[in-house]
Amino acid sequence: MKIIVCGGDGFCGWPISLHLSARGHEVVIVDTLVRRAADRELGVDSLTPIRALDERLAAWRAVSGRSIPWHAIDLAHAYDDLLALLVRERPDAVVHLAEQRAAPYSMKSPRHKRYTVDNNVNATHNLLCAVVESGIDSHVVHIGTMGVYGYGSGGGTMIPEGYLAVEVPTADGQGRIEREILHPTDPGSIYHMTKCLDQQLFYYYNKNDKLRVTDLHQGVVWGTNTAETRLDDRLINRFDYDGDYGTVLNRFLMQAAVGHPLTVHGSGGQTRAFIHIQDTVRCLSLALENPPQRGERVRILNQMTETHRVIDLARMVSAMTGADIQHLDNPRNEASRNELPAVARSLISLGLEPTHLQEGLLEEVIGVARAYAHRCDKSRIPCTSKWTTS
Amino acid sequence: MKIIVCGGDGFCGWPISLHLSARGHEVVIVDTLVRRAADRELGVDSLTPIRALDERLAAWRAVSGRSIPWHAIDLAHAYDDLLALLVRERPDAVVHLAEQRAAPYSMKSPRHKRYTVDNNVNATHNLLCAVVESGIDSHVVHIGTMGVYGYGSGGGTMIPEGYLAVEVPTADGQGRIEREILHPTDPGSIYHMTKCLDQQLFYYYNKNDKLRVTDLHQGVVWGTNTAETRLDDRLINRFDYDGDYGTVLNRFLMQAAVGHPLTVHGSGGQTRAFIHIQDTVRCLSLALENPPQRGERVRILNQMTETHRVIDLARMVSAMTGADIQHLDNPRNEASRNELPAVARSLISLGLEPTHLQEGLLEEVIGVARAYAHRCDKSRIPCTSKWTTS
Repeated sequence: MKIIVCGGDGFCGWPISLHLSARGHEVVIVDTLVRRAADRELGVDSLTPIRALDERLAAWRAVSGRSIPWHAIDLAHAYDDLLALLVRERPDAVVHLAEQRAAPYSMKSPRHKRYTVDNNVNATHNLLCAVVESGIDSHVVHIGTMGVYGYGSGGGTMIPEGYLAVEVPTADGQGRIEREILHPTDPGSIYHMTKCLDQQLFYYYNKNDKLRVTDLHQGVVWGTNTAETRLDDRLINRFDYDGDYGTVLNRFLMQAAVGHPLTVHGSGGQTRAFIHIQDTVRCLSLALENPPQRGERVRILNQMTETHRVIDLARMVSAMTGADIQHLDNPRNEASRNELPAVARSLISLGLEPTHLQEGLLEEVIGVARAYAHRCDKSRIPCTSKWTTS
Repeated sequence: MKIIVCGGDGFCGWPISLHLSARGHEVVIVDTLVRRAADRELGVDSLTPIRALDERLAAWRAVSGRSIPWHAIDLAHAYDDLLALLVRERPDAVVHLAEQRAAPYSMKSPRHKRYTVDNNVNATHNLLCAVVESGIDSHVVHIGTMGVYGYGSGGGTMIPEGYLAVEVPTADGQGRIEREILHPTDPGSIYHMTKCLDQQLFYYYNKNDKLRVTDLHQGVVWGTNTAETRLDDRLINRFDYDGDYGTVLNRFLMQAAVGHPLTVHGSGGQTRAFIHIQDTVRCLSLALENPPQRGERVRILNQMTETHRVIDLARMVSAMTGADIQHLDNPRNEASRNELPAVARSLISLGLEPTHLQEGLLEEVIGVARAYAHRCDKSRIPCTSKWTTS
């Protein structure tokens, strides 16, 4: 298959691109390196020494013998270039990761809120519009988040894979009718809200133009490297530990490595879904190699392998490393504790064999967090974004 | 109250601004005259001879003794100007009509799709973001459309006012739990889709920042003038009859007046909700004068007074005028017939006394459509937008 990976320089996009290339697919990366610009804006850097994209791609060519061309096209604002690329390349699939992906970053200021909405909505819409205009039957694969449904205090319902069977009253008030609807959303940040808007965009273009779309609702990604990024130091993947882009488990690992207490926001009773980066790349190839038929509704899969409470993760890392646990005020506007019962059968049924936390965690602590601890700027650990002004 | 009307030069915005001013409110108009630019782009003009906004405002000052200042701020792209205006004026309420409002226009081409998404999403988000940043507790009143729920073939459920009580299975699969959710959407065009995105934006800002929002889901507006726009020829309201911006009933009236057959797309079995422009302006003042409390969820009201099948409207106008009825292929991707049972009790309970079609139709035929028939360009009657390429 020929596959365009939009956002192919990012934390998920880079190992996905290499994995697809290693599997023999013809990969083209689209990326404006905007994630690296955000690092400079925030005064932070990946804990791991990631190389310039040109250097990464040259290393991959040297290691694998395979070329990955790269185009710096801004999906949200360079529609004509995007359309020309689609028409020229005629991809079988487009992986869409060209979105601002951090909830805390999206809440930093009005400017960050507005950037996140403008970028994410226009990037998604331009891609869908361009696929229709190109006349090419490309399969669009997007990574969304399980967070679109919110993290309420629970209530005992199961999170299905995208669609929910409900019963609604009839017009005459006498009976009830079964309906299958897109699962209602309840986003907890501007970032999460843009993923809810994406869901509407996919639904519409699938219905009106029969676009083939797979939307992977991903849990929190942990881990750093994959089989391909381990092949050469110059292929190393990004590891974010700062208060904006760092995800909870990677932040704990790095904090443990540098002797900083593990910072738990609030009670730690928040339950989240997790997936290792190696499983992310496998899920992508499974989704791409098992595309929906034309005319099939949007395929929504929960891309996660286990769920944990934040405090349990902190205790696990603490037990492994001896780090202290520190409770801080939670800057997020969310329930202090929640359950997260979720269905995630589809990717397993396609052949995913999950990497579990208990197996991979120690390697991350030793191989990555401790190995690069000298590169950590401790002043960037605190999370400074506030969800509300009050 | 001090009320900013964004989109105050448009078909709904102009009579709303005058009505609120006549009721003693302090009105400020924000409008970049983009609707007039669309007329020039399409080579069409209002059937009625609307005056330049400056001239309209001078006439209103002469007639009523009341001033309405006007600011040409683009909500979607001039955030700083919008924020400065809010901080300076400290409005009690903001009426948000600054959106591209025609489904056929939104489907004309990829450029029109992209303009509609970019403009409508960024305009709404910038407004909500600016109200939060300003720190002012302004009530945001938006006009959406009943079309967000789609016009499927029916199915016997009632359209409630925004929220739907459903039953969902429990996590253990043993029972069912009642939930109240935002009514699921099923948009039939890019325009309608942007109104679904608006709904998500309102939901989020109401939840996270306690913004007070009223979202009026309006039916198809018919009629031209209101008590205030009739006071002086220079205050006359817009009447669109072209294939992009003309709404179904006004198009029939004008077609009858110029001896053109009434153009029914498809079978005419499509049921739509209707409201007279005089009732639109009354609904707005009722919504503004009965605002939600801080902390109250988004108030969603169905703003309509009656429902009709398109073919029945054509027969009504035909009986009144002798015009022929012509069935054309339907360019829209929609069910050929549908029911539309809907609840619209809230605005009636606030005091709305509806203008019914049977009462107001003849005045429109004689007083507007025939009076200005000489200004009609018949070549602009056909609807040229196509919903799909196939």
